[in-house]
Amino acid sequence: MVTAYRGDVVFTPGPERFRAIEDGFVLVDDYGKVVDVVGSLTGQYADADIVDRSGNLIIPGFNDMHVHAPQYPQAGLGFDDELLPWLERYTFVDEAKYCDLAVADHWYRRFLTHLWQVGTLRFSAFATLHGDATWRLIQLAQESGLRPMIGKVNMDRNAPDNLLESTRQSLEDTETLIKRTAEDAPDVGFIVTPRFVPSTTPELMEGLGELVRRYRLPVQSHLDENRSEVEWVRKLHPDIPTYAQVYEHYGLMPRNRTIMAHCIWLTDAERELLKDRNVLLAHCAQSNLNLQSGIMPARRYLEQGLRLALGSDVAAGHEPDMNRHIVASVEASKALRFMPGHEGDQPLKLSEAFYMATKSGGSFFGRVGSFEPGYEFDALVIREDESLLELSVEERLERFLYAGASDAIRERYVSGHVVYRPFAGVPSAGR
Amino acid sequence: MVTAYRGDVVFTPGPERFRAIEDGFVLVDDYGKVVDVVGSLTGQYADADIVDRSGNLIIPGFNDMHVHAPQYPQAGLGFDDELLPWLERYTFVDEAKYCDLAVADHWYRRFLTHLWQVGTLRFSAFATLHGDATWRLIQLAQESGLRPMIGKVNMDRNAPDNLLESTRQSLEDTETLIKRTAEDAPDVGFIVTPRFVPSTTPELMEGLGELVRRYRLPVQSHLDENRSEVEWVRKLHPDIPTYAQVYEHYGLMPRNRTIMAHCIWLTDAERELLKDRNVLLAHCAQSNLNLQSGIMPARRYLEQGLRLALGSDVAAGHEPDMNRHIVASVEASKALRFMPGHEGDQPLKLSEAFYMATKSGGSFFGRVGSFEPGYEFDALVIREDESLLELSVEERLERFLYAGASDAIRERYVSGHVVYRPFAGVPSAGR
Repeated sequence: MVTAYRGDVVFTPGPERFRAIEDGFVLVDDYGKVVDVVGSLTGQYADADIVDRSGNLIIPGFNDMHVHAPQYPQAGLGFDDELLPWLERYTFVDEAKYCDLAVADHWYRRFLTHLWQVGTLRFSAFATLHGDATWRLIQLAQESGLRPMIGKVNMDRNAPDNLLESTRQSLEDTETLIKRTAEDAPDVGFIVTPRFVPSTTPELMEGLGELVRRYRLPVQSHLDENRSEVEWVRKLHPDIPTYAQVYEHYGLMPRNRTIMAHCIWLTDAERELLKDRNVLLAHCAQSNLNLQSGIMPARRYLEQGLRLALGSDVAAGHEPDMNRHIVASVEASKALRFMPGHEGDQPLKLSEAFYMATKSGGSFFGRVGSFEPGYEFDALVIREDESLLELSVEERLERFLYAGASDAIRERYVSGHVVYRPFAGVPSAGR
Repeated sequence: MVTAYRGDVVFTPGPERFRAIEDGFVLVDDYGKVVDVVGSLTGQYADADIVDRSGNLIIPGFNDMHVHAPQYPQAGLGFDDELLPWLERYTFVDEAKYCDLAVADHWYRRFLTHLWQVGTLRFSAFATLHGDATWRLIQLAQESGLRPMIGKVNMDRNAPDNLLESTRQSLEDTETLIKRTAEDAPDVGFIVTPRFVPSTTPELMEGLGELVRRYRLPVQSHLDENRSEVEWVRKLHPDIPTYAQVYEHYGLMPRNRTIMAHCIWLTDAERELLKDRNVLLAHCAQSNLNLQSGIMPARRYLEQGLRLALGSDVAAGHEPDMNRHIVASVEASKALRFMPGHEGDQPLKLSEAFYMATKSGGSFFGRVGSFEPGYEFDALVIREDESLLELSVEERLERFLYAGASDAIRERYVSGHVVYRPFAGVPSAGR
């Protein structure tokens, strides 16, 4: 049987432009996969079951490709500081509290509820180094109906004592979680998550690389976020020419299965390497301004054929709402144009930023983030506000992305199933 | 009698830092003016009436010093375009619809409700050129309990036919509204509002200058927003050295009573003139990125002693929420640091941006925007979310500004009086 979701459908098969069908139908099969998008029901689909959402927008769900789940409680704090004081005053204090499972349980429910509320249906999250708390996040995510990848953070150097683990413990806990996730949380993917090069010893990276190979796992980490970090990595690994090559050297850049957040200060050699490995770059425009890291030249990266998605980077980004990060990436690309050498760069178009937040990020999960045939039906149904002007479907989407509220999202679907509000008793984010 | 508002009080007597009093009292007299802020009630205030808002933040209300009220329905549209196509496709079409009083009535209620909702208690708004619709906005504003300045827009050149008026009609309608406002809308100020130099003939500017003198009125307009606009003004007025001096020449820059929006591309001579006239510069950071106008060097202007406030510039800014514009101004100042010649500039601190949005903007209305003795008690009471970290009062304010929701605002006071939701049947902005 085919189900026909009726509404004003808009998505991005490619980054150049939106595809919009006013009063159309997304046809979805019993496996939750898109069969086609059509303007009217004829022929074999004439008697499809209709789910009538006429007058509402139907768009792909959002994918947040870089987010620190435990930092959710500190979102919006500390942006008069730069990276290091911010980490010490907020992040390390916050993350250390996740040794307490009750803290983890409470705040991870709030985090997942906020993501559900704002239409982030898939994401790739850093947890903390705590095995138990990470497992709780994985369990709650499985229960939520959302479909993330989650990794236990690994750190065995250059962190406060209460956020350090032994190399051996780090590897053992990681392997335990890898197995447990595969067995007991079938809708969650485990992703290997060295925090970043400065906080993982060569032995740890080597061990993690071995786990990546053995279990064919994906990897996420940070790369080239700010210039002093780049310099630090150079000093820690003087024998390896670039930061990106350190990950590669230790087997932490598996082809097609690697996410690197930030990537602002890439060298030419690094760009070539990332392209060769088909790394997904998670562009975190809001975070990069908040912490004064820099502005990723996203336009040029796109032209160079790099694979770009968006990340909220909560809590260096101050909100999980991906519509805001779509706008932030457009705004950052406009700011960049006022810098010498970039005057001729075109800013990101809205369709490009939307593509990054849907189809490009979604590619990490399979065929996700578009309504082309064979894609998972991951979708948001968005009710419409009245309008003084006559608006096209694309314009209504633009208005939602720039000025919309999360309570305009009426329904969320993952792989063809409705995802209901996940947990009882968790307060709304209020936006 | 003195009323003591109890809560966690935070405000900015100066831009350098917040003044915060945990579990303190704002003492307010019967005229709605602040007497003092104290940590405990002793002596003559021991038996003050207490309004207990313990555990809530009490902060000054927001002042939006540049906003186009009729453009509210188009907020969030058209930002793949630059200024001119954006004006033609959206703004001119939108504003022309205000010839219909029913349109004006409906959308101005929604506009005022949104401002109320997000805690903007005073503002300076452009209406359209339509006398009747402008009067409706003034009436509704009077009814709302908010305390804005509002101006009928004047345009007698370089606009579409349906948005042009004759010089004589423009002046007559303006004078009619000046008198009517003074008589029938005592809580609204009329502000003379030439759209900008390119849309007002010398005759019109001269006539408006005469009205400014005769009625001792304030003036608002646009200045140095983008480079082609600056060039256009130079061509229109080749005998006057700079854009700012055109306004001055026609008597449209009365000392202490002028707001100029944007001011990105000021020359040295213009800066000196604005300083001399104590012009309030309305910094519209979000708008300036959306339309790719530029980034105001706000840090330098502050150091040069210019008077800076913030403007949402809806609809070139996509949301009226001033907390978002506080953040946008900080972010813009951080982006500017990546530009050559600005590496040494400090970004705006949060206290500086907050000061602009409260006390500095408020100065245009008298003693407004602070809780120092003699100031009007314009205030927001903000309920607290739980926190994982121990947070200071300033940190809780920061969290609200970056990540808070308007429904966290529990109460609004203007000059000591509660302002209730203004109109029945108007939908919430939903944020």
